Amino acid sequence: MQRDERYMSMAIQMAKETVGQTSPNPSVAAVVVKNNQVVGLGVHVKPGEPHAEVHALRMAGEKAQGAEIFVTLEPCSHFGQTPPCAQAVIDAGIKRVIIASHDPNPKVSGRGIKMMEKAGLTVETEVLIDEADELNRAFFHFIKTKQPYVRLKSAMSLDGKIATTTGESQWITGETARQDGHSYRHRSAAILVGINTVLMDNPKLTTRIAGGGNNPVRVVLDTHLRTPSDSQVIQDREAPTWIFTGDSVEGDEVTHFQDFPHVKVIKLETENVQVEAVLDYLGEQKLTSLLIEGGGTIADAFVRAGKVNETITYIAPKLIGGRQALTPVAGEGISSLAQLDAFKFLSSEQLGVDIKVVSVREEDS
Amino acid sequence: MQRDERYMSMAIQMAKETVGQTSPNPSVAAVVVKNNQVVGLGVHVKPGEPHAEVHALRMAGEKAQGAEIFVTLEPCSHFGQTPPCAQAVIDAGIKRVIIASHDPNPKVSGRGIKMMEKAGLTVETEVLIDEADELNRAFFHFIKTKQPYVRLKSAMSLDGKIATTTGESQWITGETARQDGHSYRHRSAAILVGINTVLMDNPKLTTRIAGGGNNPVRVVLDTHLRTPSDSQVIQDREAPTWIFTGDSVEGDEVTHFQDFPHVKVIKLETENVQVEAVLDYLGEQKLTSLLIEGGGTIADAFVRAGKVNETITYIAPKLIGGRQALTPVAGEGISSLAQLDAFKFLSSEQLGVDIKVVSVREEDS
Repeated sequence: MQRDERYMSMAIQMAKETVGQTSPNPSVAAVVVKNNQVVGLGVHVKPGEPHAEVHALRMAGEKAQGAEIFVTLEPCSHFGQTPPCAQAVIDAGIKRVIIASHDPNPKVSGRGIKMMEKAGLTVETEVLIDEADELNRAFFHFIKTKQPYVRLKSAMSLDGKIATTTGESQWITGETARQDGHSYRHRSAAILVGINTVLMDNPKLTTRIAGGGNNPVRVVLDTHLRTPSDSQVIQDREAPTWIFTGDSVEGDEVTHFQDFPHVKVIKLETENVQVEAVLDYLGEQKLTSLLIEGGGTIADAFVRAGKVNETITYIAPKLIGGRQALTPVAGEGISSLAQLDAFKFLSSEQLGVDIKVVSVREEDS
Repeated sequence: MQRDERYMSMAIQMAKETVGQTSPNPSVAAVVVKNNQVVGLGVHVKPGEPHAEVHALRMAGEKAQGAEIFVTLEPCSHFGQTPPCAQAVIDAGIKRVIIASHDPNPKVSGRGIKMMEKAGLTVETEVLIDEADELNRAFFHFIKTKQPYVRLKSAMSLDGKIATTTGESQWITGETARQDGHSYRHRSAAILVGINTVLMDNPKLTTRIAGGGNNPVRVVLDTHLRTPSDSQVIQDREAPTWIFTGDSVEGDEVTHFQDFPHVKVIKLETENVQVEAVLDYLGEQKLTSLLIEGGGTIADAFVRAGKVNETITYIAPKLIGGRQALTPVAGEGISSLAQLDAFKFLSSEQLGVDIKVVSVREEDS
């Protein structure tokens, strides 16, 4: 690996560890190097706090004079919650800037680079761009579409079953896979289930991983507002719960959960809950990523709407069988193979006794 | 890698290339080494022809005197279609014998080794035994159970579907996966489908791979003898076709295919065709391995009978959906997770646009 790629790879590694904690901002890291010595390191920790470049330049202090900075995303050029990073880089006396990803917003993309070039700095871009783009796939999608990036998570047997014919489903996959599944809750801004999953499994939908994790906003699609007030998503106050209903729900039903300030009922303007309207709403609320956890009818609605961006599938080495056994995506389905969204596999790996495969929609990759 | 392992690894590689051509015999290779020079190489090419050791010793000629022989399976001690290889090794003047796998037949296992030790040769065993055992997994199973080793091959979408709700199934997986699938026909002694697959897909069930391949015996499970005489398994004479029926089929129906000498109708003694009886029959006919290719009801029958030894699953990066869409293993299914056979994954790899995963039953591994 070349020198520039080496330092960028280190920065990408640092940024990777912050995935899930920066939403609605991207995950970014910066490394300041002078005479082949690392003199400054920084990541963006959370919204409202300094950007990665600022932390790295602060740590470098005087040593930033005449140094290089490696940053995983083009430094910003605008005043947001913090002053523009491109200006901070110039002010610190940096001579050379090495960038991986471009700013995904076409309106500002390239502006930070121009600012720095105008000030006489050497700027190189697209160093390890694929790895860096991968890191912020969800954020980039959100910036471009104003809707959250949708991940569909499933756990199934080798013959595609999520339960036996009698409904037994705990547990098809092993502990390692289940733990890995929770890490996707940690890195998601929201998690979504259908009312049937609430009624049948009564899940808590919080993140249980070693060391603690972010809880995503819990979203329930519940056309007729049947979520029981004694269900875990209502009783547990660790995370907000947003319930989307159709227009037939009466006003006094909507106020039914007023004793639970973490619960919000969102009445849509259509008879049934539409995927598009839900994603628009979540996007407006700056939720950049959404994890779909069940069940099959909900998954099918997102698949048919063409709104699944990524799949995470845990496959257990088991054969269950059964014409009537449930599969991860049920509902009506898509009848013609030619109409399917094209995905491509990113990875396939053994995880404990199971296998995990990840794919992304071609369009997004 | 140590020296002994290096030569054995070479022998295993050689034997691997003969998988599928030696049935009902195992795949075996031998390497004769003298003063760190390879002086003899041999594989067992096909039943009735010399064993691997004999070929390798012939090639070595005089140079076998005082040399070592690396062989992937314990040399035989009995007169079968050929004289005992252990004796040939002794007669050639070999000093040291390095063996990977033991003879799977408990009645003769160790006899060849004893013969050679008695004659003063140094014998070492279990060098790279796992890799070598893997190679002859099917043969070993056959020797121990007198039934063929059963592989279940499936091609499905990421959500476990083998067709859309309207039955469209060509093609879910890509060309590379389909070609790889044909390689399993080449290495199988028999291939099995149910009558519904014959009626709906009318497959030829022959091996189409570059360079030509072995055609397995085509087995059709057909309780009421409904196989049409114009179907490809009858009209095509490239491979034998064996049709298993239940006992309700009349004698004159059985002779229905007498103009087709490659077709044999086997009437079982039960009303329905039983998995156990079919496997017993195939075992008696010395068919060491069986590939199950469809459909879901047949797969389910083998799964419920606990007769699937290995699974080969091709997974396409597609989401099809549909409560009614078909899955690879249908039928009644197994209702309790605790009753499932335990499998373990051997591999998971990208194959063209698809993923291939292979698992084996824990009991067999």
